[in-house]
Amino acid sequence: MPRAAGTGLVGGANAIDGCVVVVFDAMSQIVEIDAVESLAVVQPGVINDDLRAAAAEQGLWYPPDPASSPWSMIGGNVGTNAGGVCCVKYGVTRDYVRELEVVTGTGEVVRLGRRTAKGVAGYDLAGLMVGSEGTLGIITEIVVALRAARSPETTIAGFFDTLVDAGRGVAAVAAAGITPSALELVDRECLRAVDEWKNMGLTSDGNVLLLARTDLPGQAGEQEAEAIRACFEQGGASAAVVAEDEQEADALFAARRLAYPALERLGPVLTEDVCVPRSKVPEMLGRIEEIAGRHETRIANIAHAGDGNLHPLLLVPAGDDEAKRRAQVAFEEILDAAVELGGTVAGEHGIGLIKRRGLASEVSPGVLGMHSAIKKALDPHGILNPGKAFPDIDDHTARTEATLA
Amino acid sequence: MPRAAGTGLVGGANAIDGCVVVVFDAMSQIVEIDAVESLAVVQPGVINDDLRAAAAEQGLWYPPDPASSPWSMIGGNVGTNAGGVCCVKYGVTRDYVRELEVVTGTGEVVRLGRRTAKGVAGYDLAGLMVGSEGTLGIITEIVVALRAARSPETTIAGFFDTLVDAGRGVAAVAAAGITPSALELVDRECLRAVDEWKNMGLTSDGNVLLLARTDLPGQAGEQEAEAIRACFEQGGASAAVVAEDEQEADALFAARRLAYPALERLGPVLTEDVCVPRSKVPEMLGRIEEIAGRHETRIANIAHAGDGNLHPLLLVPAGDDEAKRRAQVAFEEILDAAVELGGTVAGEHGIGLIKRRGLASEVSPGVLGMHSAIKKALDPHGILNPGKAFPDIDDHTARTEATLA
Repeated sequence: MPRAAGTGLVGGANAIDGCVVVVFDAMSQIVEIDAVESLAVVQPGVINDDLRAAAAEQGLWYPPDPASSPWSMIGGNVGTNAGGVCCVKYGVTRDYVRELEVVTGTGEVVRLGRRTAKGVAGYDLAGLMVGSEGTLGIITEIVVALRAARSPETTIAGFFDTLVDAGRGVAAVAAAGITPSALELVDRECLRAVDEWKNMGLTSDGNVLLLARTDLPGQAGEQEAEAIRACFEQGGASAAVVAEDEQEADALFAARRLAYPALERLGPVLTEDVCVPRSKVPEMLGRIEEIAGRHETRIANIAHAGDGNLHPLLLVPAGDDEAKRRAQVAFEEILDAAVELGGTVAGEHGIGLIKRRGLASEVSPGVLGMHSAIKKALDPHGILNPGKAFPDIDDHTARTEATLA
Repeated sequence: MPRAAGTGLVGGANAIDGCVVVVFDAMSQIVEIDAVESLAVVQPGVINDDLRAAAAEQGLWYPPDPASSPWSMIGGNVGTNAGGVCCVKYGVTRDYVRELEVVTGTGEVVRLGRRTAKGVAGYDLAGLMVGSEGTLGIITEIVVALRAARSPETTIAGFFDTLVDAGRGVAAVAAAGITPSALELVDRECLRAVDEWKNMGLTSDGNVLLLARTDLPGQAGEQEAEAIRACFEQGGASAAVVAEDEQEADALFAARRLAYPALERLGPVLTEDVCVPRSKVPEMLGRIEEIAGRHETRIANIAHAGDGNLHPLLLVPAGDDEAKRRAQVAFEEILDAAVELGGTVAGEHGIGLIKRRGLASEVSPGVLGMHSAIKKALDPHGILNPGKAFPDIDDHTARTEATLA
């Protein structure tokens, strides 16, 4: 099984019994940055932020920006199809992968995809590898598309009394035809945890914080920032401001950046990653609140609200087995609630070990059968990241064999 | 085998002996346009332009714009992963497909992908279906993402003496960090054919025409248009202008729009669709010129120059079997030249019947083996669009069986 930086949150890179782990720390070379073709060739062990810095030196930009970007590696980002803050406007890792060198389950070395901007010769096997969590091949080289560096961003903040109001703020931005370069939500639990740690006075401004960014150039950016601010007011914000400068913008985004470490100060955190249609964000947050109450589990929420990708953070008091068990039940119920609302159990983190039951609740047996058929076709000996990303690979393989015989 | 509007240019929707054809003319309903989620649910027989018009009524936009958009159907667009003029900035069909209802090779009806903006639960089977040319499943419903309607476009035209100069113009735009919403090339053969038909005096302005568009709003758009014009001059344009109004823009783009019908007036046209790294566009055009001379075949060129996607148009005099044979040899040599330059035999039209040898020249036996393994896994009886998109499906299936046994 391949393992990059191991920053994943679902156990996809945790070895099971008897598994050989292939690590990529020594394959950390940026092979090439081609400014004319706007692409980079990297080994799997390159740190996300290192690629971004190298691209920036040539006036280019690699958009996918998972929160783990200072530590996570491009190989792992490709394996999980990592997202991030700016993907509401710029898409996820798969949108940037052009070509992959892959070692297959039968030991062949193949190159999938191509360097050109377009191409439809054959199946999209490079796209299939992205997000397959190491179960279909081991990626040994990656060609990604880059974009031209963009204009500096402007930050807009809105404080809301209720989650429903914040949901209205998000809907108003969408209805205005605006695609911000970030649209993040931070709930009261997170604001309180940050306040308890850093004493920033966030909770005195409101219960829910929406943070948006625009990166349109010049006057267009100023106009979009003001339009987003107006949308927040329209949604019922108790306060809505456009940051005057980078310093103020950083202070506002600190609430988002510090939420996770602030919560971790209180004990172990179990991170969710559901994604629902964006109009269902308020209802999903309501369901999470109800589940938290019923299972006496403290749950905070940060969310990529613009694309409906929620990260409920379940606080699990250390050493309390009963509380841990309740949190685990709550975790599973949140997955089911997301599926009920037309969403998915995994927005950007993957299935790994801990969402295997969730996958089975989301995807039909017929679709699972197709997964198993493809897994068996490309990894006939079942040697690639065994035990991951399938509800129960043996059962489904058997089922597929029966269906497809 | 599925057949939508049959506008494809590689024979992918042409039945072989004994094949049952599933047509979609009666499945032409736009099921839903959801402005809040920015998506549309359509049946495969919906005409591309009809979807665009319905989206526009709600202030939304479906970007993929193949030249066949007045006639081609979304089902066919998905089957071939169709591109178009604006995909240099906005991507191709696959980038907009969220969910598909598919009838599999074993007769099951499955839903692949999901409606949410993000999602990584399981393999990207919806993405795999896109561009698979009907060989992995029959698509019966399609959910596509829409974007907010954009600002009106501004057109910039540059006339160049040589293809190399025009290539410099394209490179200058890229080097300036500009992503135009169109960047098209029309060569002397095309300009002459349009002039012979419409007497527009195009060839008196220069030998090669570059047409760009920008859709940035307001002042940013004006600035970008002027920057592109300056890039064209920098590349050595003999004339470079920004269109004053929509009427002038239409007149400039007429040369691009009328090129294909103007050439068809002269006889049957064999359409190529190679894609090369964008820096190789001038060299590829040089190779095409050399091949044309050597095989005494008249070849005109239109190109999505911004993404290196060339459409050499081979003029085949009707009723001249020897000329037809020479054109066919030239056609194959152009495919090989694209592969030699690091490109692909199919940028946006697919493999179908006529590029099967070309696919084998581009893709390694190992990769073809993976194709066959997936085909066999999802269509074990080989009933889905038989004979298409594989160099020789029986040979490669046999090979795969040997490799993967």
